[in-house]
Amino acid sequence: MKKVRYGIIGIGNMGRSHAVELLDQVNGAELAAVCDSSPDALAWAKDRLPDNVQQFDQPEVLFKSGLIDAVIIATPHYDHPPLAIQAFDAGLHVLIEKPAGVYTKAVREMNARAAASDRVFGIMYNQRTNPLYQKLKELIASGELGEIRRTNWIITNWYRSQSYYNSGGWRATWAGEGGGVLLNQDPHQLDLWQWTTGLMPKRVRAFCHFGKYRDIEVEDDVTAYVEYENGATGLFVTTTGEAPGTNRFEVTGDRGKIVIEDDKLVFWRLRVPEPEFNASYNGGFGAPECWKCEVPVPAGHGEQHLGILKNFTNAILHGEQLIAPGEEGIKGLTLSNAMHLSAWEDDWADLPLDEDRFHELLQSKIATSKYKKKTDESRTLDVTGTH
Amino acid sequence: MKKVRYGIIGIGNMGRSHAVELLDQVNGAELAAVCDSSPDALAWAKDRLPDNVQQFDQPEVLFKSGLIDAVIIATPHYDHPPLAIQAFDAGLHVLIEKPAGVYTKAVREMNARAAASDRVFGIMYNQRTNPLYQKLKELIASGELGEIRRTNWIITNWYRSQSYYNSGGWRATWAGEGGGVLLNQDPHQLDLWQWTTGLMPKRVRAFCHFGKYRDIEVEDDVTAYVEYENGATGLFVTTTGEAPGTNRFEVTGDRGKIVIEDDKLVFWRLRVPEPEFNASYNGGFGAPECWKCEVPVPAGHGEQHLGILKNFTNAILHGEQLIAPGEEGIKGLTLSNAMHLSAWEDDWADLPLDEDRFHELLQSKIATSKYKKKTDESRTLDVTGTH
Repeated sequence: MKKVRYGIIGIGNMGRSHAVELLDQVNGAELAAVCDSSPDALAWAKDRLPDNVQQFDQPEVLFKSGLIDAVIIATPHYDHPPLAIQAFDAGLHVLIEKPAGVYTKAVREMNARAAASDRVFGIMYNQRTNPLYQKLKELIASGELGEIRRTNWIITNWYRSQSYYNSGGWRATWAGEGGGVLLNQDPHQLDLWQWTTGLMPKRVRAFCHFGKYRDIEVEDDVTAYVEYENGATGLFVTTTGEAPGTNRFEVTGDRGKIVIEDDKLVFWRLRVPEPEFNASYNGGFGAPECWKCEVPVPAGHGEQHLGILKNFTNAILHGEQLIAPGEEGIKGLTLSNAMHLSAWEDDWADLPLDEDRFHELLQSKIATSKYKKKTDESRTLDVTGTH
Repeated sequence: MKKVRYGIIGIGNMGRSHAVELLDQVNGAELAAVCDSSPDALAWAKDRLPDNVQQFDQPEVLFKSGLIDAVIIATPHYDHPPLAIQAFDAGLHVLIEKPAGVYTKAVREMNARAAASDRVFGIMYNQRTNPLYQKLKELIASGELGEIRRTNWIITNWYRSQSYYNSGGWRATWAGEGGGVLLNQDPHQLDLWQWTTGLMPKRVRAFCHFGKYRDIEVEDDVTAYVEYENGATGLFVTTTGEAPGTNRFEVTGDRGKIVIEDDKLVFWRLRVPEPEFNASYNGGFGAPECWKCEVPVPAGHGEQHLGILKNFTNAILHGEQLIAPGEEGIKGLTLSNAMHLSAWEDDWADLPLDEDRFHELLQSKIATSKYKKKTDESRTLDVTGTH
């Protein structure tokens, strides 16, 4: 194969952005087809994309067309696993948008089908290309921070107005998205939280507020507390209702702390690990000597979506290692499923998650939803700089 | 009265500091007597204080001596309420060290006795003299921040080594202190949390870890989540086991956010309140215009203990308004009692607190304690700059 021929399913906000990038910014990639059930979306494609990009309105027809080698699935979240499964069955490589799905039961099936295929499976965790988080992961993995004790992320700068929610009927509904800020805005941070630290919690206690700031039925404000196997704790605090909000990720280890905030990484490094200091110190008050270290991190936010598109293409063509393997999408989704379950049951959610219980409760939310939203149906928003 | 004649009960770490300050730094104050059951403490007093400062080893004898007008109670926490009650009964003005006590039942009795007297009652909340927190309180009270939505305090820089805990047998035991970081280190922040915001939660869900980092039986790591009547939420995260730790207090309102960290206050001010923006905005993505405002705050940490001693003296002599009325000590203690209760019962603790239940569980912790500490018994530590 010299070029990967791509199809994109879902020409909404993100699909359009990927389509444009694939046109001429990714070596070895060729945009061959797009697919959307909306005539408006296809009209956009006709207007904006070259004539040789074929148009489809049914995914299964695209899958069997023989026109593509790989598919990008940028549909609403629920459709990611079933469409990915169909695509694997058709022998295609698959890159899914985040989140991997809405409930882990379905994502687990998708992962099994991917594992049974010999195709490349990726997920659009574009924030993994951000040098700040890459550096954090590397510092932790190499032991610079020692054993982790605390992982607190305040990510409250996902401001969304009512106008945003009104831009699509599927947005912020149980039936349409299966959640709010946790499913739509936070998947990147939920992934980075576990990817950088290498830790998944053993249990979660979350407090979700549903439609607190906006006329929506899903959560728009969450505080979640987690406990890890090694005794460490963590927090994840998020909302779409605050401005200007905060994006501050603090990871503490027994060798100091690292804070990522305002696009900067600062490492407060203890000269000797805390347990060592504690074992030998006999002065009463007093603390380990600490150095504020300026750790070099490349400027900018990395290649983001384009970086993932290039990497996924190179993985297919040259076996390059994936930055974001699709199978890992279940981790962040497990975190948000656990937060929802904990909040709904007003109790701890243990991991491994009771996936059947989660799915059952989600279905009952959908079934009993009385929510009718006033929308500007299927309005497409400019996503430049937002994801 | 021209001068307030002071007695100090408890010449340990804090008592000694107050004694030295009262000698010549507080106009209108005179150190008349000290009282301690420890011969070592009285030996210190004989060595360090002028000969005219009388010594007592029994509080009740001091109270009835006629030598003093006011008493500072700087004993271990449990003794604050019973000693204060005796002092009010003896017609004395009373200034207690923090915390007000260990359980709110006792503090409520103390407050009732204070209210029934015509004496001045203060508490050593010296952090209320810090211009940063005074400014925060003023900004919130004057409406600059609008309605409060979130109050998150990460106060994890209370590092204490095992050596510190070994310096006194009463330290960090249920019988001796009635708690750990919440009772000894955090009372200032627990007070400022409610004092600056003017808010007490309606319920608390806390996660306490006992003896996690040190060989002690009480909590040395806490994450507490709270909900307020108006829908706002808050977090209080604290430990003595981390270095360098963090002291970051973020308060969000519908007009922006204020962060106090690194001895600086920064106000991110929305040009129009968020609800107003949201009501009129129709652009999909987009957020209210926000200004980073540099608000002038006097440098330094204020007069601290000396400021409280001066203010309390002036309250007695000239009716000056108290910075920290003693009756308000119950608020911070209610917060820590609620955190303990929530953690012990692994459930929500509603406010008003079930004080009987808390007291009952505390007593059972004391009764069933099997903890024996290796200590350097009654070693007195230099507290300069630590409180």
